Amino acid sequence: MIRDRDFIKNSTVPGPTKEEIRCLVLCKSELTSQDIVVDIGCGTGGLTLEFAKRTSKVYSLDRNPEAINLTSKNLEKHGLKNRVQLICGNAKDEMDKFPDFNVLMIGGSGGDLSFLIEKGFSKLKKSGRIIITAILLETALEAIETLKKFDMDVEVINAAISRGKIIERGTMMLAENPITIIVGVKRN
Amino acid sequence: MIRDRDFIKNSTVPGPTKEEIRCLVLCKSELTSQDIVVDIGCGTGGLTLEFAKRTSKVYSLDRNPEAINLTSKNLEKHGLKNRVQLICGNAKDEMDKFPDFNVLMIGGSGGDLSFLIEKGFSKLKKSGRIIITAILLETALEAIETLKKFDMDVEVINAAISRGKIIERGTMMLAENPITIIVGVKRN
Amino acid sequence: MIRDRDFIKNSTVPGPTKEEIRCLVLCKSELTSQDIVVDIGCGTGGLTLEFAKRTSKVYSLDRNPEAINLTSKNLEKHGLKNRVQLICGNAKDEMDKFPDFNVLMIGGSGGDLSFLIEKGFSKLKKSGRIIITAILLETALEAIETLKKFDMDVEVINAAISRGKIIERGTMMLAENPITIIVGVKRN
Amino acid sequence: MIRDRDFIKNSTVPGPTKEEIRCLVLCKSELTSQDIVVDIGCGTGGLTLEFAKRTSKVYSLDRNPEAINLTSKNLEKHGLKNRVQLICGNAKDEMDKFPDFNVLMIGGSGGDLSFLIEKGFSKLKKSGRIIITAILLETALEAIETLKKFDMDVEVINAAISRGKIIERGTMMLAENPITIIVGVKRN
Ligand SMILES: Nc1ncnc2c1ncn2[C@@H]1O[C@H](CSCC[C@H](N)C(=O)O)[C@@H](O)[C@H]1O
Ligand SMILES: Nc1ncnc2c1ncn2[C@@H]1O[C@H](CSCC[C@H](N)C(=O)O)[C@@H](O)[C@H]1O
Ligand SMILES: Nc1ncnc2c1ncn2[C@@H]1O[C@H](CSCC[C@H](N)C(=O)O)[C@@H](O)[C@H]1O
Ligand SMILES: Nc1ncnc2c1ncn2[C@@H]1O[C@H](CSCC[C@H](N)C(=O)O)[C@@H](O)[C@H]1O
Repeated sequence: MIRDRDFIKNSTVPGPTKEEIRCLVLCKSELTSQDIVVDIGCGTGGLTLEFAKRTSKVYSLDRNPEAINLTSKNLEKHGLKNRVQLICGNAKDEMDKFPDFNVLMIGGSGGDLSFLIEKGFSKLKKSGRIIITAILLETALEAIETLKKFDMDVEVINAAISRGKIIERGTMMLAENPITIIVGVKRN
Repeated sequence: MIRDRDFIKNSTVPGPTKEEIRCLVLCKSELTSQDIVVDIGCGTGGLTLEFAKRTSKVYSLDRNPEAINLTSKNLEKHGLKNRVQLICGNAKDEMDKFPDFNVLMIGGSGGDLSFLIEKGFSKLKKSGRIIITAILLETALEAIETLKKFDMDVEVINAAISRGKIIERGTMMLAENPITIIVGVKRN
Repeated sequence: MIRDRDFIKNSTVPGPTKEEIRCLVLCKSELTSQDIVVDIGCGTGGLTLEFAKRTSKVYSLDRNPEAINLTSKNLEKHGLKNRVQLICGNAKDEMDKFPDFNVLMIGGSGGDLSFLIEKGFSKLKKSGRIIITAILLETALEAIETLKKFDMDVEVINAAISRGKIIERGTMMLAENPITIIVGVKRN
Repeated sequence: MIRDRDFIKNSTVPGPTKEEIRCLVLCKSELTSQDIVVDIGCGTGGLTLEFAKRTSKVYSLDRNPEAINLTSKNLEKHGLKNRVQLICGNAKDEMDKFPDFNVLMIGGSGGDLSFLIEKGFSKLKKSGRIIITAILLETALEAIETLKKFDMDVEVINAAISRGKIIERGTMMLAENPITIIVGVKRN
């Protein structure tokens, strides 16, 4: 995984998703090198870069031009730029333009989560996955309920990670905020 | 419990111990209004004030004069000043001066934890309790091992608390750092 | 606090609420010895007994006759029987019969949570508290939303407690299931 | 990742390491397909199989013949048998026989952790990694201290994962026991 510190950051754009959460999302995506990924709300590019290291067909979208700019810089820094198509726009207006995909990652939805899942489901290939990372209880629940409505196999993981900071006196455990990862798998 | 925001704070003194941890420590102390408490490393006074609300014989000690000063101000603010004797000094030099006690709280030990537990054990009344709050793995383990050596009943709790911050978009869960609470009970 | 092992248990009745969660609920209840408490879904009596140790006016209700029976036995075991009035029935039919109260504890609601909060709010004294313990995401969110609707001050705590089991080889940390505690305070 | 339920299990052998922990260990191993891995204490084969899916040079060792047998069955079930050399024996007697390796995974050490790290360090290639998963506080600390002694870059992660169980009434969060993952990287 790319270390958190190896991303260029910007105080006006959220992210990158913490390394351990990126790792869990990647595992849950079951990505293969042939897969097409759409990353909605790419922010700093945390997840986009990880996807791009593993497949060359990634579409990343954010409504914040600064996020697109920052993701672009991070892709360049890590030599991944030609693997990702960046789109600046509101997800609900752009979903129709994508080809069908294997993985839909939703890291930000601005109130349109159900709509995005619905749209995403219609473009999701068989056995494809929709993954949502939630820092709000409300987002977690809306994701679960919408995925269930589409009769997907739903998995819910809450990850409370703390990292040891090694100081002179010893090992201090510092908490990251807990994240809920919701995964829906389209049945065949 | 006193709310975290109701303590006067100072950037050079750690504390107060977060409300939920104070709550757990209080429960584990099994304090009665007749009990004598010694609070080593009183810091901001977080635990001292909670003890003082429940018994009038609290001795609180810190080697940092600013901590003593700050605890004093917080006691005054909450009308608890006449219940606590404040001592500025290094715990390992002061332990001998206390009368026997029912509860020994160690929130800071500066490398002398085993020594303080040993001294504390010799002054601990029957069924009395030694409680250590640890943010370092090393402290937690040294506490457990030393309490076991004195054949105390040992209990270990790790508390990972997150608090919901209610914002317009929903309820964001924010983590507090995990704390290990170690309790030793002197057998009869 | 009463130790978990000191409750009489029964495989068909949930509870007792784990000691650390009882401790946090008690702290959040800000109970005084004059307060009237209603405990809905008393189960094994975990919370009922803790309330009864601190005030003598506790009404405890469960729709499961075995829960009432078990709570009764636990009250007797701990000498608290004359402090609690036990009612067997469905909360939504019984709420009207209670006098106004200071603390409403909801540990089980069987699908009627919003209704019970609404009813409870109308009988809640000024500065009184409604506390909900949730093991389901859905319950946590319904509680938060309903308390907000009544313009209460809302607090949300998620507690992930693990306990150290001391075995020959060392200290094994064993997790309890995370519980969300939601507290609403009625404004004056 | 392989799902927990897709391992053949046996009540006398621990494991498999839970999926999310396997995922984090894999990420932290930074494995490439050319790497040589030694997995000490392979148990059910949880980690062995994940390594074997990503490199073909895995040596897996356990002192319990049933663990070797079970790992063998799981390798066969997942078509990975020819990628792993299984050795039944006590790690401290077998370490010398391995070629130099890139990743040393220690999931069980039976009291010999420092010795195994020391031996492992001498056979570890440059930029290689030693990874320890600990369920005991004592193991975590011994790992940290020993890795620091060899001047490795040390990383400590505590993962408290809970999984949502979707039942009729909603989503119940069930905790897995917290695991500490310690990683040491050999400097160049
Ligand atoms: N409806 C919408 N359409 C497009 N982008 C959106 C959106 N709602 C929110 N976002 C974007 O979602 C992002 C969430 S933060 C995402 C962080 C990212 N996963 C990382 O690891 O770096 C923000 O940048 C926000 O601008
Ligand atoms: N050997 C020692 N003797 C006295 N005080 C000590 C000490 N080692 C550390 N301390 C003190 O221990 C404190 C730890 S912080 C304690 C915070 C406190 N429980 C609260 O809730 O506010 C620091 O103020 C530090 O000065
Ligand atoms: N609508 C309702 N009316 C009354 N009791 C209800 C109810 N819905 C659920 N319950 C009860 O709520 C209980 C939840 S378990 C409560 C455990 C308890 N707090 C303890 O610490 O022991 C169950 O016993 C269930 O029978
Ligand atoms: N000194 C030693 N040498 C070899 N094996 C050991 C050992 N000490 C402990 N073990 C083994 O370590 C294992 C720990 S359990 C490991 C589980 C495994 N990682 C999985 O995912 O399936 C046990 O099977 C135990 O027999």
